[in-house]
This record gives sequence, structure tokens and C-alpha cells, in this order.
Amino acid sequence: MSVAAQSHVALRWDGRGLAVLDQTLLPGAEVWLTLEGADDTAAAIRRLAVRGAPLIGMTAAYGLAMEVAREPGLGSLERGWEVLRDARPTAVNLAHAVDRVRAAALAAGPVSMAAAARAEAQRIHAEEDAASEAIAANGADLLAGVRRIATHCNTGALAAGGRGTALAVILELHARGGVHVLAGETRPLLQGARLTAWELARGGVPHELVVDGAMAGLIRRGEVDAAIVGCDRVAANGDTANKVGTYSLALAARAAGIPFVVAGPTSTIDPTLPDGEGIEIEERGGDEVRGFGGVETTVPGTAVRNPAFDVTPASLVSALVTERGVAQPPDTAAIVALLG
Amino acid sequence: MSVAAQSHVALRWDGRGLAVLDQTLLPGAEVWLTLEGADDTAAAIRRLAVRGAPLIGMTAAYGLAMEVAREPGLGSLERGWEVLRDARPTAVNLAHAVDRVRAAALAAGPVSMAAAARAEAQRIHAEEDAASEAIAANGADLLAGVRRIATHCNTGALAAGGRGTALAVILELHARGGVHVLAGETRPLLQGARLTAWELARGGVPHELVVDGAMAGLIRRGEVDAAIVGCDRVAANGDTANKVGTYSLALAARAAGIPFVVAGPTSTIDPTLPDGEGIEIEERGGDEVRGFGGVETTVPGTAVRNPAFDVTPASLVSALVTERGVAQPPDTAAIVALLG
Repeated sequence: MSVAAQSHVALRWDGRGLAVLDQTLLPGAEVWLTLEGADDTAAAIRRLAVRGAPLIGMTAAYGLAMEVAREPGLGSLERGWEVLRDARPTAVNLAHAVDRVRAAALAAGPVSMAAAARAEAQRIHAEEDAASEAIAANGADLLAGVRRIATHCNTGALAAGGRGTALAVILELHARGGVHVLAGETRPLLQGARLTAWELARGGVPHELVVDGAMAGLIRRGEVDAAIVGCDRVAANGDTANKVGTYSLALAARAAGIPFVVAGPTSTIDPTLPDGEGIEIEERGGDEVRGFGGVETTVPGTAVRNPAFDVTPASLVSALVTERGVAQPPDTAAIVALLG
Repeated sequence: MSVAAQSHVALRWDGRGLAVLDQTLLPGAEVWLTLEGADDTAAAIRRLAVRGAPLIGMTAAYGLAMEVAREPGLGSLERGWEVLRDARPTAVNLAHAVDRVRAAALAAGPVSMAAAARAEAQRIHAEEDAASEAIAANGADLLAGVRRIATHCNTGALAAGGRGTALAVILELHARGGVHVLAGETRPLLQGARLTAWELARGGVPHELVVDGAMAGLIRRGEVDAAIVGCDRVAANGDTANKVGTYSLALAARAAGIPFVVAGPTSTIDPTLPDGEGIEIEERGGDEVRGFGGVETTVPGTAVRNPAFDVTPASLVSALVTERGVAQPPDTAAIVALLG
């Protein structure tokens, strides 16, 4: 039975309990939340205190493990699995992670269920850490020589294991020779402005922040060599659900003839979906759009559409970089082969 | 000598003096500013209390007329012309309008200079009002049957004469049979959220607000029949400078096979530029991006790129709608012919 501590920029596991950095308060304040089971973990995921597809998976795995440790038994396992699995609909890592913890717990049987769940959560965490380093190396090999990089949303250690996904590639490229990053602010919740700027500053990577609408024009003006983003769910053909604004970035990259690269662990790939048509797109509340930080930005009561994600068609994705190698969408066979 | 009052949603001319609605405070408050000459008018334009390419032109024309009325003479005419012409670089209407007022004043000679300048400013205002109605009719004819419309930034009476440009087309389509509008919020200064939502609500047009990054995905999902925007400067071939985010909207419209229409008075066309390469793009201060209604959104001191406009290539513009008819970019001859 493993009770090793596994800590991370955004998540601290002491072997029994979990603390997560409340990302809604960054960069203004660094506040850690102590989580104790499935319900509070699901709530933290729902309100985006914890976000980023792989990090959601890791956190949910710990949440289910804690739930089972607190109250061992099939009832708490099934209830915890369900509440966590339903916390958010788009990222497949969430379902993938809690399914694994549940399966490990069921296989272990009642007496060692808690230990097995904990061990599986730690295994997922360790795998995501390792995946990040492999993604960083694979992506930096692919983009060798690229200096001026556009990215969107947050894909660093605040979003995934290790150094993250797309941001891990950027950090690795920076370590190998220096880069300059254009980061989209990522309305409505400003993960680019709040989180990516924070991580890039900590990493010493030169960067400039732009509003999401400005990115395409700067790419058209020749100011970017490549774009790289993360992913919340990738269909078997490479159609990619990611934060709204990703599809615009892909269109602009294609129009300018620069690579548009998607980076993520294979836990983000959903082989059950032949293409992006079947990806459920989470619609969030209108208040995220009607204001920011408590300031109203529009006529009170204005109706809002607030999809959290868009789907970039595989035809616009130059490469899918995973810990197990790189595939070229829409080559479904190559993508599915990454899953082993 | 005409001293007729000409009033408007955003601008009141009483025959001698000008008041403008401070658009930076909308929709929270409706505050009118009294302007007296070239300097305060230029300052109001620079800080975007008055914005929208045609409205900037109208306001600057009155500003120069007031300057000359206050202190008739060649010195104040030339100084006022220069300070207003330089207030913002991208919209060509500004230069066009103050050039006209200056030419009228020079032609009139010292004694009747002030009256001539005032008359020319009023003529520009009346022409822009008439242009808006013609644009509305031409655009609504072109887009007959369109129900679900995407737009960006603000192009209504707060941006131009009459009912505006693109928004005048939308209002006319609504009057003819009903439309539903998806309005991009238009970071960094939120002209869509603050101004377009306010105008659509006043006009009784059903609408939903979206963050700029979400528009492309909704278009890809088939939720929009046509996109229509205004313009800050149109080159002879139809390359169009407009608010950042416009180019992304055009790319998404093209990918989805829906029309992307640019609407504006012919005063926005710059026949001296063969294409968009020569359009100067205004870069504004970083604080617009680093904050949101007084709330800081990123790590203090984060570097920012803040171009106010992007250029949409003529190849993506389905139609250019003006008061003198419709042209299909990149048909330079047809566009230049609109100028008569």
C-alpha cells in the first residue's frame, strides 16, 4: 500500500489527503483548499478551482480515493464515482480517471478497496507527470527551431501533471534555445491572462498577452511561427475539443501556413468517438460573460451564449503530440495506435 | 449660413456647440460632454468617448468648425486641422472629414470661414445620416431572408450617422421580418457588450452576447446565417481594417460557407491604398488588456500587444455594402466606382 506524498504546483497529496490551489483566485492570491471526498472535490472541479483536463482527472481520482477511504464500501464507491464523473461533461480525462479508480477498487474487494483506490490515484498522478515530460520532449523535437509561439488558455502545471501539456512543450523549447510567447487572454475566465501569464513569468519565458480577437491578425502579420494548444477531448480522427477560441487560432494558423499543434496525454483521446460530432460541449452560466471580477460589462439581464469549448476539425490540426509519440490528424489509425 | 440643430443618439449639435455622449461610461451611465474646439474634441476621440469611424469623422468636423468659430483665421484652422487629423490613425473618415472642413473654410476666405466650416460639418453629418439609411436598405436587400446574424464591435448610431452601418442593416432586417443577433463582446473595450447590447435592447432586437473566442465555434455549429461588420478603413481592393476579432469572424464565416459582409459609408474607403498592406494599425496601451472595468486580470506588469484593428483580406469579404451600392471585393474597379 503506497502512501507516498506527491506534490505539484497546483495539487498536494500527502498520502491521505488532498490540497488544491484555488485557481479562481490566481494570480492575485495563492489559496489552498483542503478536499476530503467526492462531493467537495466535484464542487471544486465544477467551479473551476481546479481546471485543465488532465488535472481534473488527477484530482477526481484522488477525490474518489478519499471518498472510499472515508467510508469504505460499494455504496460510497458508486456514489462518489457518479458525482465526480458528472462534475463536468467535456474533458474525457475525468471519466477515464474515476473509471480507473473504481475498477481498481472493485478488483481489490472490500477489505483493501481504499488502499487500492489510493494506489490507483497515485498511479494516475505519476503517469500524468511522466506523460508531461514525454510530451515536452516530443513537442520540442517536432517544433525544433520555432521561436515565436502563440498559445491559448492555460496548459501548464496548473492544468496537467508535470510541466503541463502545450506549455510543457513551450518551456522545453525555451530551455533548448529561447522562445517568445503570445498568450491569448482566454475570455470569459481569463485562464491565459491569469494563469498562463503567471506560469510564464515564473518560468522566465518572455511573453506578451493579447485579447483573443487580436491573435489572428498578429498571425496574419507574420508575427508567429507556430501555434500550440492543449485539448479537453480528442476524437479518434483528431477532431479536438478545447477552450473556445482554439478553433479561431487554428483557422488563422492554417491561413498563414504555420503549424497548429495540439498537445495532450493519451488520456485525453476518446477512441469511442469517430469524430468531434459526438463531443458534448459544456454550456456555462451567462454571468461569466456578463462580467468579470464582480464588474458588470453589459446591460443587466442581457442574454448570453457561453459554450466553454469549441471543436477544431482534424483537418486543421498539423500534429497531435502525446507522451507516446506524434500523430497526424485525421489519421485515425495512427491516433488510435497511440493508445496501444 | 446654416445654424440648424442636428441631433443624434450620440451627438447633439445645436447650431453652435457640440455635445457628445461619453461612450466609455455606457451602459452604466449616460453622460453628455460639452465640446468647444479642436483640442477637447481630439481628446474625446483619443480616449474613445466618441468612437466608430463615421462618428469620429462627424465629430471631428464639428470640432474643427467650433475651433474656427472661436478664433477665426488661418492659424487656428491649420492647428485645429492637424490636432484632429492626428487624433487616431486608422479610420480614414477622420482625415476625410477634417480635410473637407478645412477645404471649405479655405475656399470661403477669412470673413466667412467660420460659417463655411460649420456648414460643411453639418453637410457631413447630414450625408452620414442619409448614408446610413441607404446602407440599411442596400444591406437588407442583399441579405433578404437572413435570420441569424453574427456581428462584432459596435456599428450602430453610437458609431455612425443615422442608425449606423452594419447595425443599421440588422435593424432594417429586423423591421422587415425579424432577426436574432449573436454579438461578440469585443475585448478589450467591450463595445459589443456595452454598446451593441444597449442599442439592440433599445431597438427590441433579440440578441445573445458571446465572448469573442466563442463566435467561430457557434458559426461552425451552424448557428449563424450571415456575419456583418462595419469598417474603419477599406483599401481600394476591399481589404478591410476593422476592430480586432473581425478577421477571425471572416475566417469562420468562410469556413462555414456563410456570407461575410462589410458595411460602411464610402467615406470609409481609402482609394489611395491599393490594398490593406498600407493601413496603419493603431497600437493602444496595455492597460486596456491588463484590466477589465478597473479589475486587474493578469500578473502586474505583464507585457501586452494591443492592436486596435486587424485587416481582413478582400478574398474573405463577400460584399461591401455602401450608401451608393454594393461591390464584391476584390473587384477594385467596382469599389473605386462607388466613389463616383
